[in-house]
Amino acid sequence: VELKVIAARTPGFAGADLANIVNEAALLAARKGKDAVEMPDLEEAIDRVVAGLERKSRVLSETERDIVAHHEMGHALVAFSMPHADPVHKVTIIPRGVAALGMTYQLPTEDRYLLRRSELEDRIAVLLGGHVAEEVVYGELSTGAHNDLERATEFARLMVTKYGMSERLGPLTFGDGAGPGFLRRGGMPWAGGGEREYSEETARTIDEEVRQIVERAYERVRALLSTKKDVLLRAAAVLKEQETLQGEPLRRLLAGELSPAGV
Amino acid sequence: VELKVIAARTPGFAGADLANIVNEAALLAARKGKDAVEMPDLEEAIDRVVAGLERKSRVLSETERDIVAHHEMGHALVAFSMPHADPVHKVTIIPRGVAALGMTYQLPTEDRYLLRRSELEDRIAVLLGGHVAEEVVYGELSTGAHNDLERATEFARLMVTKYGMSERLGPLTFGDGAGPGFLRRGGMPWAGGGEREYSEETARTIDEEVRQIVERAYERVRALLSTKKDVLLRAAAVLKEQETLQGEPLRRLLAGELSPAGV
Amino acid sequence: VELKVIAARTPGFAGADLANIVNEAALLAARKGKDAVEMPDLEEAIDRVVAGLERKSRVLSETERDIVAHHEMGHALVAFSMPHADPVHKVTIIPRGVAALGMTYQLPTEDRYLLRRSELEDRIAVLLGGHVAEEVVYGELSTGAHNDLERATEFARLMVTKYGMSERLGPLTFGDGAGPGFLRRGGMPWAGGGEREYSEETARTIDEEVRQIVERAYERVRALLSTKKDVLLRAAAVLKEQETLQGEPLRRLLAGELSPAGV
Amino acid sequence: VELKVIAARTPGFAGADLANIVNEAALLAARKGKDAVEMPDLEEAIDRVVAGLERKSRVLSETERDIVAHHEMGHALVAFSMPHADPVHKVTIIPRGVAALGMTYQLPTEDRYLLRRSELEDRIAVLLGGHVAEEVVYGELSTGAHNDLERATEFARLMVTKYGMSERLGPLTFGDGAGPGFLRRGGMPWAGGGEREYSEETARTIDEEVRQIVERAYERVRALLSTKKDVLLRAAAVLKEQETLQGEPLRRLLAGELSPAGV
Amino acid sequence: VELKVIAARTPGFAGADLANIVNEAALLAARKGKDAVEMPDLEEAIDRVVAGLERKSRVLSETERDIVAHHEMGHALVAFSMPHADPVHKVTIIPRGVAALGMTYQLPTEDRYLLRRSELEDRIAVLLGGHVAEEVVYGELSTGAHNDLERATEFARLMVTKYGMSERLGPLTFGDGAGPGFLRRGGMPWAGGGEREYSEETARTIDEEVRQIVERAYERVRALLSTKKDVLLRAAAVLKEQETLQGEPLRRLLAGELSPAGV
Amino acid sequence: VELKVIAARTPGFAGADLANIVNEAALLAARKGKDAVEMPDLEEAIDRVVAGLERKSRVLSETERDIVAHHEMGHALVAFSMPHADPVHKVTIIPRGVAALGMTYQLPTEDRYLLRRSELEDRIAVLLGGHVAEEVVYGELSTGAHNDLERATEFARLMVTKYGMSERLGPLTFGDGAGPGFLRRGGMPWAGGGEREYSEETARTIDEEVRQIVERAYERVRALLSTKKDVLLRAAAVLKEQETLQGEPLRRLLAGELSPAGV
Repeated sequence: VELKVIAARTPGFAGADLANIVNEAALLAARKGKDAVEMPDLEEAIDRVVAGLERKSRVLSETERDIVAHHEMGHALVAFSMPHADPVHKVTIIPRGVAALGMTYQLPTEDRYLLRRSELEDRIAVLLGGHVAEEVVYGELSTGAHNDLERATEFARLMVTKYGMSERLGPLTFGDGAGPGFLRRGGMPWAGGGEREYSEETARTIDEEVRQIVERAYERVRALLSTKKDVLLRAAAVLKEQETLQGEPLRRLLAGELSPAGV
Repeated sequence: VELKVIAARTPGFAGADLANIVNEAALLAARKGKDAVEMPDLEEAIDRVVAGLERKSRVLSETERDIVAHHEMGHALVAFSMPHADPVHKVTIIPRGVAALGMTYQLPTEDRYLLRRSELEDRIAVLLGGHVAEEVVYGELSTGAHNDLERATEFARLMVTKYGMSERLGPLTFGDGAGPGFLRRGGMPWAGGGEREYSEETARTIDEEVRQIVERAYERVRALLSTKKDVLLRAAAVLKEQETLQGEPLRRLLAGELSPAGV
Repeated sequence: VELKVIAARTPGFAGADLANIVNEAALLAARKGKDAVEMPDLEEAIDRVVAGLERKSRVLSETERDIVAHHEMGHALVAFSMPHADPVHKVTIIPRGVAALGMTYQLPTEDRYLLRRSELEDRIAVLLGGHVAEEVVYGELSTGAHNDLERATEFARLMVTKYGMSERLGPLTFGDGAGPGFLRRGGMPWAGGGEREYSEETARTIDEEVRQIVERAYERVRALLSTKKDVLLRAAAVLKEQETLQGEPLRRLLAGELSPAGV
Repeated sequence: VELKVIAARTPGFAGADLANIVNEAALLAARKGKDAVEMPDLEEAIDRVVAGLERKSRVLSETERDIVAHHEMGHALVAFSMPHADPVHKVTIIPRGVAALGMTYQLPTEDRYLLRRSELEDRIAVLLGGHVAEEVVYGELSTGAHNDLERATEFARLMVTKYGMSERLGPLTFGDGAGPGFLRRGGMPWAGGGEREYSEETARTIDEEVRQIVERAYERVRALLSTKKDVLLRAAAVLKEQETLQGEPLRRLLAGELSPAGV
Repeated sequence: VELKVIAARTPGFAGADLANIVNEAALLAARKGKDAVEMPDLEEAIDRVVAGLERKSRVLSETERDIVAHHEMGHALVAFSMPHADPVHKVTIIPRGVAALGMTYQLPTEDRYLLRRSELEDRIAVLLGGHVAEEVVYGELSTGAHNDLERATEFARLMVTKYGMSERLGPLTFGDGAGPGFLRRGGMPWAGGGEREYSEETARTIDEEVRQIVERAYERVRALLSTKKDVLLRAAAVLKEQETLQGEPLRRLLAGELSPAGV
Repeated sequence: VELKVIAARTPGFAGADLANIVNEAALLAARKGKDAVEMPDLEEAIDRVVAGLERKSRVLSETERDIVAHHEMGHALVAFSMPHADPVHKVTIIPRGVAALGMTYQLPTEDRYLLRRSELEDRIAVLLGGHVAEEVVYGELSTGAHNDLERATEFARLMVTKYGMSERLGPLTFGDGAGPGFLRRGGMPWAGGGEREYSEETARTIDEEVRQIVERAYERVRALLSTKKDVLLRAAAVLKEQETLQGEPLRRLLAGELSPAGV
């Protein structure tokens, strides 16, 4: 059992959460008739807690599996290539939980309490990776990227409105709870809510700044995936075949070290 | 009993839903004094679950039946003609349920978890088909198309604000729940709701982009139905006479393979 | 008893409603010492259900009765003259119910499930008829037309925002419930309400289109009533004298077939 | 007992209201040791019901009494002079009820169900009379006119937004409850309230039209009271002395028939 | 005991309030071992009811006491100098109640039911007096003036939106409750609140007019306190020493009749 | 035990709060096996009450500790250098409480009831110190400064909207509760909330003024920390090594009196 991997895959987990995972792994091992809990049991247990149960009954069409494979490999390739992104641990197109059709797991190398601007930018890039991969491969988008886009937008918005990272807007914060209204409402953000304290002009500048952050990340990702399109196509083909990829084989695929024949 | 058709007509149905349909079909068959449940009983059972009971008591005027027949055939002809639309299964002008005066059933050939942009555009086109048919045939609209338009607008709005499919707005999401406000409200979209976080200028761009998607689909549909106006008229005439059309006869009508006399 | 008239005056009535009316008519007949229910009893019963009890105690001044008579005859004359309006059945200046000072009853010739644009336009014209009659006759308006104007505005607004009948706005819908917000709120239009999703510019275009529809109808009605001002005056005079007019005498009055002396 | 006056002073009163007034009058008469209820007892009873109890304990300063006297006489003189205003019955500077420092009573000559535009304009003029009188006499305003202004603004707003009396806005209605939103909310004006359906441009036009109506009335009133300033001053002086004026003496004062010495 | 002073210091007090004050005064006198209630006991009792208990434990720094002394003397000197302001009764820098660091008491010479524009303007001037005094003396402001500014703004806003005292906006009222919305909500200002009925342009004009009223008062006060800066400094010095000033000594100080040495 | 330090570290604490701290200190001393409570026990007790328990389990990466050390020293150096800021008492990078990764404690030399504009400006400067330190040292920001920026923005907003400290906006207050609406809602800021009474133009001016205050402070801080960059780097290095700094060593570090070797 690689404790370091388990630790890296469970950032912010409390002791009880970890106990829970070990229990789950024990049950999985028992069900398979094993005598001892092994690394795969623990990995599966973590996957269940993080992303929900496998949904093998969710049968996607060939076209859909194709899209999902390229989408996930888009995330993985960007995560692999961006200097400040967490390393890729595993990519899968086995559906899990309520809505996921595939997943890309990154390994935080350590618990994080602060994120630098460059790290935030790379997170946004990774989130956009699936979207851009679809565009580069198919020349058209699908509905699958929508949660990624929402999170990317939210990161960019936080950078602009909460972390003072927009030069045009300066080191101020904007929105809920800032300003005297928040104090008067006894610190309750929901009471009398709905009042946007800043002006329309400020709203426009915020929109422009948020958009610029996302668009810049988008351009970087598009440049990357266009250049590495053949790596993307090859890796997605392998993923479609094997359904789950991790470790060294995944790394070599993403690094473009395998020739088409070599897989 | 064609299980494949039943499966295609009940995408996303759980086992209990299917059991329910079989039960209903058994009752219908029994009421007709049959010994076994046959395909028509199952189809009728599915119709009841999907669209409600037949309302033969809802007697439309000749003019209204005329409008409904052309409206439904508009949907059907667009669905038949667009490359990414689901195939047409049945068209009827027998009123059903709370408000439907007619219905066009499409057969999803498989359960869908992702929709590509071209598929979304064809769905919008099919929704506009009834509206455009009225315009092409009568030169004036009726109040009947309103739910179709609402759904077409909603698809277009989702494409622009959630799926990043507008070039002018880029790969961002807009609206409810995006942005820090959502987080602060503990993820509860209703608390302190009503705050539109984006600026008036962004709202205007969203409106323009949504409108462009719908208008483009509209032009495609108008071009199609103007060209095939005689097919539309003939098929609607047959529908008015027979009230329900499906299968091969419907296909041949939509394909324009039947001469006026041949029906 | 003319069943056809009763049917036409009670569109959308359920069996229980009709039973109720017959009961009421029986009571009215009994109170008058009759042995059988006759047509006038049924008509009075329908009036009570549709518009409330007569309020003979509501004594209007001469000036007010004058205004009401011209106002109602304005409605009636427009309904009589517009090609797509339902025919006029009865006009009265006997106050009824909570607030009505007079009423114009139209006979739907059949139950309606769809309305064409031209029919909607004529309904708006009929609603404006009372308002325009006051303007044509007195050169000044009174507070009486206010509910008519509200309904005319609402019809025009629905044409623009729900039925896709505005060329400038196209086949889209606008307002409550359209768009993703509606979906996220679980389809509950009241939760977090108050968010208008479209932009200020769209709001302005909607206002202009709604206004244009009403103003065009207004011009048509003004042209009509200016031309037929003598018919209007004569008919109102007779109405003031007789309080209620219906059937052939009403038709001949509206058709201008009676000379002033002939009444 | 002048029944006609009592009827005119109690428009819209139900039988129970009238019985209540007679009771109150009987108590007042009894308290004064009278054998029979007389006209003054009935008038006092009506005043109590309409405006509340006299508040002799509310002792105004000389300056305040002066202002109130001119303010009330302003209302009275405008009501006396405008062709479509109800005649003045009584003017008083005895405080009554929760907040009134003085009152001007007009006698509706009949119950009213409709108001013509010219009548509404004269009502607004009467409401502005107190405000303008202060300006004409003192060259400065006091806080006393505020409820008058609110009601005048409301009348003007109704003329513009509900009665179709603005040429620029046409025969449409604007605001609460008009439009499809009202229907969708199940006719409940409070659910999801706060949504103004019309555009900012329409809001501006409404503001301008409302203002124009009030300003025109204001100019008419200012012209009137400037011309009749001596009548106003004389009448206010008498009112300050006698506290309450009514009937023929009031009429002659307002008509300017009394020479200063003649009072 | 000077009953006239007690009456003037308790405008709008009911009998029970006065009884309460006498009780409180009796307790205070008893605590001091007196046989009879004297004027100072009554004054202290009134102070307690109006402003809360003394807070000797609230120990201000020298700098803060300095600011408070000049701030209060600013109020007092403006109240003393403005023709329509109520006369100053007492000034103190002994903290009282929840938040007051000092207070200036004015004696209304009579109960007031109406306020003229000039009186409102002088009230605003008195409220600004503390703020301006800080500016004149220190060249910089502190957070202490905030409640004064809120009240001054509110008076100015009422003048513009409720009392018709803005020439640019005319004799109309603006805001909560005016207009038909108020009526429809059954007169409940909170139901469906949040709808501002007037346009953005009107909002801008209101802001400008409110600001002009406050700024004009500000200029008058600045001119006054700049001219009388030495009186202000001297009076504040005495106040810092004696903590409370009233009556003739206060009057002479404010009138500048005492030479620096003479105090 | 230095009572003066304890008093200065507990401004606004009630007797019960102080008793609580002494109790906590006694427990801490007992746990360490001491016979008496000493100054360090009291300091630790105060830290626990003010900032929560130490979180040694919150293990930051080297990079994060680096950022936190420079961030906190940024606050400390600004507080040390600005003329109106409270003196620095202690700086630490031991995580505490729910979210703090480090803290800079300032000693108020006295309880404060008023703050002058220059003091507010220096408070804003101290809050920005951490943010600017990151920029000066790393050339890029992290997410750590977000609560500082929110508080700085709030101070600036209060200066503009509540304390009359903006020349462009004048001595008025803006926002919640000001204006007649507040009065009508019975002084309840939450009822019918969400109505911003001022115009869009005023909102824009407020935004500009708030921003100018923050930006000016930012420029001052940037100038300071750029000039003293070597002091900042050296002090942060010592802080990283020793985790907590206070008293004379801290003062000498911030004063730049220690040579790199001298630490």
